[in-house]
Amino acid sequence: MNTLWNDRFASRTDLIGSSAIRELLKITSLPDVISFAGGLPAPEVFPIERFKEAAEVVLTEMGDRALQYGTTEGYQPLREMIAKNASKYGINITADHVLITTGSQQALDLLGKILINRGDRILVESPTYLGALQAWNAYGVKYITIPYDDDGMQIDLLESRLRRGIKFIYVLPNFQNPTGVTLSRERRIKLVELANAYGVPIIEDDPYGQLRYEGNHIEPVVVLDDQCNTSGEPAYNGNVIYTSTFSKTLAPGLRLAWVIAPPEVITKLVQAKQGADLNTSTLNQFLAYEVANGPWMDTHIKTIRDTYKERRDVMLNALEEYMPDGVHWTRPKGGLFLWVTLPEGLNSSHLFPTAIEKRVAFVPGTSFHPLGGGENTMRLNFSCMRPELIVEGIKRLSEVFKQNL
Amino acid sequence: MNTLWNDRFASRTDLIGSSAIRELLKITSLPDVISFAGGLPAPEVFPIERFKEAAEVVLTEMGDRALQYGTTEGYQPLREMIAKNASKYGINITADHVLITTGSQQALDLLGKILINRGDRILVESPTYLGALQAWNAYGVKYITIPYDDDGMQIDLLESRLRRGIKFIYVLPNFQNPTGVTLSRERRIKLVELANAYGVPIIEDDPYGQLRYEGNHIEPVVVLDDQCNTSGEPAYNGNVIYTSTFSKTLAPGLRLAWVIAPPEVITKLVQAKQGADLNTSTLNQFLAYEVANGPWMDTHIKTIRDTYKERRDVMLNALEEYMPDGVHWTRPKGGLFLWVTLPEGLNSSHLFPTAIEKRVAFVPGTSFHPLGGGENTMRLNFSCMRPELIVEGIKRLSEVFKQNL
Repeated sequence: MNTLWNDRFASRTDLIGSSAIRELLKITSLPDVISFAGGLPAPEVFPIERFKEAAEVVLTEMGDRALQYGTTEGYQPLREMIAKNASKYGINITADHVLITTGSQQALDLLGKILINRGDRILVESPTYLGALQAWNAYGVKYITIPYDDDGMQIDLLESRLRRGIKFIYVLPNFQNPTGVTLSRERRIKLVELANAYGVPIIEDDPYGQLRYEGNHIEPVVVLDDQCNTSGEPAYNGNVIYTSTFSKTLAPGLRLAWVIAPPEVITKLVQAKQGADLNTSTLNQFLAYEVANGPWMDTHIKTIRDTYKERRDVMLNALEEYMPDGVHWTRPKGGLFLWVTLPEGLNSSHLFPTAIEKRVAFVPGTSFHPLGGGENTMRLNFSCMRPELIVEGIKRLSEVFKQNL
Repeated sequence: MNTLWNDRFASRTDLIGSSAIRELLKITSLPDVISFAGGLPAPEVFPIERFKEAAEVVLTEMGDRALQYGTTEGYQPLREMIAKNASKYGINITADHVLITTGSQQALDLLGKILINRGDRILVESPTYLGALQAWNAYGVKYITIPYDDDGMQIDLLESRLRRGIKFIYVLPNFQNPTGVTLSRERRIKLVELANAYGVPIIEDDPYGQLRYEGNHIEPVVVLDDQCNTSGEPAYNGNVIYTSTFSKTLAPGLRLAWVIAPPEVITKLVQAKQGADLNTSTLNQFLAYEVANGPWMDTHIKTIRDTYKERRDVMLNALEEYMPDGVHWTRPKGGLFLWVTLPEGLNSSHLFPTAIEKRVAFVPGTSFHPLGGGENTMRLNFSCMRPELIVEGIKRLSEVFKQNL
């Protein structure tokens, strides 16, 4: 028998490829490596005791429902809680506009499935979130990119790109992955104005919005879309699909996120999700609701903020102290990542093996550039390592750079 | 602003549609309806106490890992346990040939993603599992169907279909959903012989294999493929991709299933899964391992078998007692479903509203027929309702039929 599996795979599998980061993480998760490579929350802030109490309550009082199949839309009390919390941030919606997804990676996949025809052009920041690229590559997209500066995507370059015909705009306005930069309020307003003018929808990916360590909250794009919408329709009939997650505020192991979208988009997403995994884990939805409902959550998020702010500051100070001239980095006001730019001519991928030898890891920046480039850049995560390890890791990294400058 | 979402959806969304069953379940889940419509396990057999103990152990001893991101392939001890259990059934594999998926619905979706090019022809039984159709419709398949009898798919009709060019064969050999029939050993052997001769791979979907209530276990197709494989290669380099789930033996609320496949298929599935949801819930994988590892599981499955066997018998007896002449049904040796055929000319969809009026529900058979037909058929689930309700429900159903005969 000849098992010619390689001849059997669909043509789209040539487009998918493997996530460089997830492959990389296998190397960098060796116990003595100081890893700035992952995007992991700090396990020290997982509310383990509260999860234990929640598991006891959920399994005792509603175990028969928590272990059963659930509706594709999601656990109704959780949808209502999310709708209520969203309204705190000015996103005025009901539970009907919320779909629970199996992590926001699934949200991105389902949005690709319902929106992308092969060959469609999508506008993304460059660099941008690798998971979005990986989800959408399978649908045969073409990427149009827009560069960033300290205020996020360079909005003055947007209109020329919209003229080329864009299916949707993908933006991470808060503490972007991978750069850590935040889209300014002025640019958000300009973004929604232009998107509306050209009839191009926006996907707003906001996993880190609640993790701000300094400065004032800026309204999400979905809210600003509502404000500039002169027809008086509410935002949830608007032009923006918003997604966020419990991965950074509760625990990524739950695989729980949500999409906020107009009803007709929710309907299509539900149909696509039925075919993708029927429903998100009922047990995890019940647990998340039990854990996150009520005033405890605000206190918990404050703890996370305090922890990550300290680590960010430690990393910024260490960079300042140890990095040689010519190395630059962003100064994020929140989130999990900062972005380092080496002098032109240095290639971070080439430095990676030396870094691993010195037991320190990062993600080379090229992965985040859908059309190539960024050879002299890298992403550093500051949420996952304890402060003393951050200092030591940055010291080691600076030695790698100095050897190659 | 005109939000023309309906003009924005990808062309494949016309193919997806909504699951008739999941929409139906919203109607049939009213508290006073005796529902034979769902495919739900009985909540009475959920091992709630054991889950409580497992949650305590997992969160106390390894909460930081259970709540964190995990590898896309799945939790290694769980993969090893599945490989070990599979070997009990003659599927000789290692953990490397196991991918953990977010329910077997995700397995079907990912298999569609890596195997199906638009326009590919897939051979399915008719009727067949609706979830598979829903997953694969999105990839633009064409279905070629093969009818069933009491021994499963009519294998003498297979070769003429294989000559038409088939991308893969999808089969549920044990207690098929929806008919409840089992593919005989002779036909399984013929199936793998023909599939190998024509170079067509098989997807073997086996959610109910462990839920046999009478008769002897029949080797899975993946094992028989190994036996008829004269080259001496092990089955996991073979022609069959096998999938099963914890939904029917532990709890569907976990959304935990697995695929067993040759290494090159696992590699492609992992890449597709990275884009789909990064990894299956770490917490649920840790819980499932804690609950299912060890001798307890065999005892538990025996309890499920005893419970469902009783319910099957009660339903078969009630059908015998109450159904009018001309109504026929299958006598499944395991699983969750049986299949009713009404006299020609009766349409089960037309009877559905009357049935709901009488507070009894079923799934009309047309949904399970990818190319139409089956108007006079319906699927009945016997696992979910308590025996006394099964009798009452069948009585009500017989009254609906008698009124229309």
